[in-house]
Amino acid sequence: MTEKITIALDVMGGDHGVDVVLPAAKSVLEKRNDIELLLVGDEAVIKHSLAGLGLTEHPGLKIRHASQHVEMDELASHALRFKKDSSMRVAINMVKEGHAQACVSAGNTGALMATARYVLKTLPGIDRPAICTSLPSMHGHTWMLDLGANIDSTPEQLFQFALMGSVLASALDHTETPRVGLLNVGEEEMKGNETVKEAANLLSSGDLNYVGFVEGTDVYCGDVDVVVCDGFVGNIALKTSEGVAKMIAHFIKKEFTRNILTRIAALFALPVLKAFRRQIDPRRYNGASLLGLRGSVIKSHGGADILAFSNAINVAAEVVEQNVPERIKSRLQIILSNRQAG
Amino acid sequence: MTEKITIALDVMGGDHGVDVVLPAAKSVLEKRNDIELLLVGDEAVIKHSLAGLGLTEHPGLKIRHASQHVEMDELASHALRFKKDSSMRVAINMVKEGHAQACVSAGNTGALMATARYVLKTLPGIDRPAICTSLPSMHGHTWMLDLGANIDSTPEQLFQFALMGSVLASALDHTETPRVGLLNVGEEEMKGNETVKEAANLLSSGDLNYVGFVEGTDVYCGDVDVVVCDGFVGNIALKTSEGVAKMIAHFIKKEFTRNILTRIAALFALPVLKAFRRQIDPRRYNGASLLGLRGSVIKSHGGADILAFSNAINVAAEVVEQNVPERIKSRLQIILSNRQAG
Repeated sequence: MTEKITIALDVMGGDHGVDVVLPAAKSVLEKRNDIELLLVGDEAVIKHSLAGLGLTEHPGLKIRHASQHVEMDELASHALRFKKDSSMRVAINMVKEGHAQACVSAGNTGALMATARYVLKTLPGIDRPAICTSLPSMHGHTWMLDLGANIDSTPEQLFQFALMGSVLASALDHTETPRVGLLNVGEEEMKGNETVKEAANLLSSGDLNYVGFVEGTDVYCGDVDVVVCDGFVGNIALKTSEGVAKMIAHFIKKEFTRNILTRIAALFALPVLKAFRRQIDPRRYNGASLLGLRGSVIKSHGGADILAFSNAINVAAEVVEQNVPERIKSRLQIILSNRQAG
Repeated sequence: MTEKITIALDVMGGDHGVDVVLPAAKSVLEKRNDIELLLVGDEAVIKHSLAGLGLTEHPGLKIRHASQHVEMDELASHALRFKKDSSMRVAINMVKEGHAQACVSAGNTGALMATARYVLKTLPGIDRPAICTSLPSMHGHTWMLDLGANIDSTPEQLFQFALMGSVLASALDHTETPRVGLLNVGEEEMKGNETVKEAANLLSSGDLNYVGFVEGTDVYCGDVDVVVCDGFVGNIALKTSEGVAKMIAHFIKKEFTRNILTRIAALFALPVLKAFRRQIDPRRYNGASLLGLRGSVIKSHGGADILAFSNAINVAAEVVEQNVPERIKSRLQIILSNRQAG
């Protein structure tokens, strides 16, 4: 029998805390028994909620008390300094100390990134971690990074992001050589700022399956598996996409509720629209990986619901099963030794 | 009787050239008689196409021959140097020389921007022109700039973009004080790169209706009229939005054509979906203004169809009617003299 995967959950993080994290934990354990969940947070609160869910003595659940929690708008520096016993910090400590193979938090992104980096440290050869998630696309899905861990990135860092994204895509999609594109304002060689141009040079001479510059449309419609950009651009592209989708949903709803005739049309269209919505449901894509650390940390959307948080737990399990940090480390070692030799 | 507005059209520009520009010209003249169109391009080609459209002797149309045209993938520097008699260049010359009050081109953006800047020059106090367009939003529409004229922008340049966007929004929406937001990765003061932070300082102390940082979602869902960013970010945000919309359209179509039942549902849903599509139809938003020049230049999407190009002509007419360059100039003069006094 294979060893179970243990995943630490920051129970107090996110907009809904226990109310989402514990039902999500329950839902995951109902579907799979290869996972053990370590619930990190206020023990009394957790026990009370577990009782409400009929989970008082579940063999797949353990509690690890943490006396503090990080606020959603708390400065990362403040959390680092004054929240040493926060559920977020302790969940990351569990990974560091080997009590868990991964942790999941829906807490404040800045604090999670800073704490994970401080506690776990980056892998040798990685300057800064990056946030990577998959997004729906016309052809399946696309991995994109960085989504906001870094504001300014050097060409070398963009190269590192490309490598990490490629390893993640390869591991989770079971593909040998994911196609990696660099996000730019145009496909022609002449376009773009100096940073992306230099990053393109690094990528062209590397051993990744680098397909060149891609444009914003390619994230959702292009022939590319991994889209690389700095965190400022990535975060804005992601949020803008959310805005478009939200606006479209708003107008569709508005048109179908306009009058009695459109309401009748809605009755016919609803099952079809629901099937469509499932394909791009952001909850199915919840669970971003913080890549480049000596351990696996998964960031859930702060406003995640039960389905969405469950998905983030499943992403964590997959990242552990596929041994993503170790894979990144060994890819880096090859590249670093090639560079020294070259 | 008021003087007619004369608009020069780069007839050879864009993916479709005469085949779109001339029918669009015809369509605009069928609806309004306050406009005169100056068709710039190969005279023989234009005359031939006009005859085909039954427009041989239309009083609202004049032809100005130009012997060259700029290719869609031509380098701006090449066009500037070797295409002095291109339809694009001559159309801009018409504005410079006062034969037209504005020009519209669906040609290569880089060449159009470089040529317009070279021929018309920027307004005093403006470092670089910016590309601004309106985008559909849940609350009407939002103006966004820069959409790709500049790759790197200083805080002062972002301030200038904000001012120009505010003037355009005010002029075309007939609002006194449009709300101006600065695109950033988060709304908290601490977030973002140095450039946006400094730009925020400049905007806070200026006399625009500056509402602070906005996120990507706010472009389509927020309470803001003008969203300011650098051209790299703006172009990627715009293209990413196009990608999301395209993907959603693809999935909706796919679901409604899945089987006989969904096809029946489609019959009911189609009129409603069409009404929805009209609201976010990108053709209705075609026609971006190149702001900051001593004259009005409108950029149409390269792949614009007749409806889209007609819209760009109407945008040009509105910009002229509302005297946008003159308004930007006078706002700048006030700011510059306040700074000298301060």
